[in-house]
Amino acid sequence: MERQAQVDAVLDRFFSLSKNRAAKFGAEYVGLWKKLESSASGGKRFRPRMVMAAYEGLGGLDADAAAYVGAAFELLHTALIVHDDVIDRDFSRRGIPNVSGSYRDIATTAGIPIPTAEHRGMSAAVIAGDLALFNSYRLIDLSGVDAGIRGLLLEILDDALFASAAGELIDVDFSVAATMPSVEEVLRMERLKTAVYSFEAPLQAGAVLAGAPQSVVDRLGRYGCEIGIAYQIVDDLLGVFGLEEQTGKSTIGDLREGKRTVLIAHATTTEHWAEIRPLVGKADLSLAEATRIRSALEASGSREFTESLAREYVARALITINDPEIPAPMLAELESVARGVLSRVK
Amino acid sequence: MERQAQVDAVLDRFFSLSKNRAAKFGAEYVGLWKKLESSASGGKRFRPRMVMAAYEGLGGLDADAAAYVGAAFELLHTALIVHDDVIDRDFSRRGIPNVSGSYRDIATTAGIPIPTAEHRGMSAAVIAGDLALFNSYRLIDLSGVDAGIRGLLLEILDDALFASAAGELIDVDFSVAATMPSVEEVLRMERLKTAVYSFEAPLQAGAVLAGAPQSVVDRLGRYGCEIGIAYQIVDDLLGVFGLEEQTGKSTIGDLREGKRTVLIAHATTTEHWAEIRPLVGKADLSLAEATRIRSALEASGSREFTESLAREYVARALITINDPEIPAPMLAELESVARGVLSRVK
Repeated sequence: MERQAQVDAVLDRFFSLSKNRAAKFGAEYVGLWKKLESSASGGKRFRPRMVMAAYEGLGGLDADAAAYVGAAFELLHTALIVHDDVIDRDFSRRGIPNVSGSYRDIATTAGIPIPTAEHRGMSAAVIAGDLALFNSYRLIDLSGVDAGIRGLLLEILDDALFASAAGELIDVDFSVAATMPSVEEVLRMERLKTAVYSFEAPLQAGAVLAGAPQSVVDRLGRYGCEIGIAYQIVDDLLGVFGLEEQTGKSTIGDLREGKRTVLIAHATTTEHWAEIRPLVGKADLSLAEATRIRSALEASGSREFTESLAREYVARALITINDPEIPAPMLAELESVARGVLSRVK
Repeated sequence: MERQAQVDAVLDRFFSLSKNRAAKFGAEYVGLWKKLESSASGGKRFRPRMVMAAYEGLGGLDADAAAYVGAAFELLHTALIVHDDVIDRDFSRRGIPNVSGSYRDIATTAGIPIPTAEHRGMSAAVIAGDLALFNSYRLIDLSGVDAGIRGLLLEILDDALFASAAGELIDVDFSVAATMPSVEEVLRMERLKTAVYSFEAPLQAGAVLAGAPQSVVDRLGRYGCEIGIAYQIVDDLLGVFGLEEQTGKSTIGDLREGKRTVLIAHATTTEHWAEIRPLVGKADLSLAEATRIRSALEASGSREFTESLAREYVARALITINDPEIPAPMLAELESVARGVLSRVK
């Protein structure tokens, strides 16, 4: 809690400063910064938590520098979700309008026709995401760490963005490809698109910042890779079998969109695919049809397969950190993170 | 020429390295990097030229560092035009498919319907622009300059992106606003969106890199501001009165799009506006109608007003640098840049 407050303080300062700067350019620009600030709040602060867990767990004492690095990863996350929503043509996130949605709504209220209003919303989101992306780099730079560490942190951030862009491109390719990807292909996409920048890189950054030896940095990276994939697998499950009251996300959206998930990729290899196939990606899928898909995903063993795959990745993550290199308190925290990934409901 | 070759060498190295890195993620990702590389080539290399002119003009000797900084601004430019094309729904630039256009064409060739193919193209362009933007920062970082100078350069780059995002937002607002902006509003938008990052910031960066005193940095910034606005005003003129064989750009596009330019903003204040108004922004504007607009823009005095405004800005730019602080050889080069802005045909 203490830690999260420190990260929030860095982000608050950053956004206050940016809004003050923006004021010289007019109220509209301040408005864009406010929307971006909203996008950066309300999340689980998972990435800063990973940075801080590694940093403090390895004896780091400069909580302020760690908070900057954590905030940098949170801002990278903000940039990527804002642009991902443009790519997915999503106008809301966690049940409230995102940047694209807010600007679309302002435009429609002003009487602008929907396609133009939607494009106007997406345009504002492209700009907002650019600002967040650029400033994620900037926050690392402003963390005040010495040049050697700074260089290593920027390499980690660079690798994370490089991987994420590769994963996003694969995901875009999936959505227009004629054939369904395999489970392995989905896992690879999910790792690149999300797990690297959300778990692997923040843990490595925290370790580097603490001055940990390379073997520990690598070990935490491996843990982050496994746990990050597990997190995404659980995400796929929650997107179809979650409780909307808890996830704040419709459990019909992924199915209507025809999202390529581990669940669906597995189902294609079963005899139940014939039943599921015509329904997945049906834009006007009914609640009854969604229920039929869910039943088929159970009958096909796809749900069980996916749940057991998540457990496997978590188990591998735990094996990775079960090593004398990892101090006991950090081990306890990372085990708790791992349990949380499996038991999470949102 | 020598200078441009140095900048090109930095960019070549950067793209080779990136493509090698991308190869580990698959051929598709290498393809995206190749499209981004194409977007970064074929331009006028105006921004690196400004960096180098200031740097060498002020006695800077580390041409390698200056080439990195020049390349950083070129990559920032690439990022901004790739995303600007997404925002403008443009699928070509300089007569050839841009990132969005290349990916749209691949998709349509694969039998994907046009709206989906266009969105796929724009999605790839969002990703590509992100990579360019992030790496513009990275190139400054890799320039090898010492920490103090690096900090100042990054501030300049940060200010440039901050201004450009503000200008892009204003431009987006123009395109959906019910009323036409004034000449002053158009000039302000053009300054923020393009002049700052294209002229003002690169000149300041070159001066900072050469260790110039703040007064010289400021003076070059003022010159860059004036000359950058002049450049954009000439751009507005070329977009309507240019020769397509020279500009490589249709002279009907801006009119069909209803682009808010100095020409149009001036015309709204004249009695000829009634004739022009129903035609500007007409998606299926005919060649004959475009000719009618051009005649009206001449008759209204809007063309003359715009040409004389460009000359005024150039004159102000020249007054700014006519000062003993500016060494004679640099003065000669900046005067030549200024003349080039007025006489340019593309």
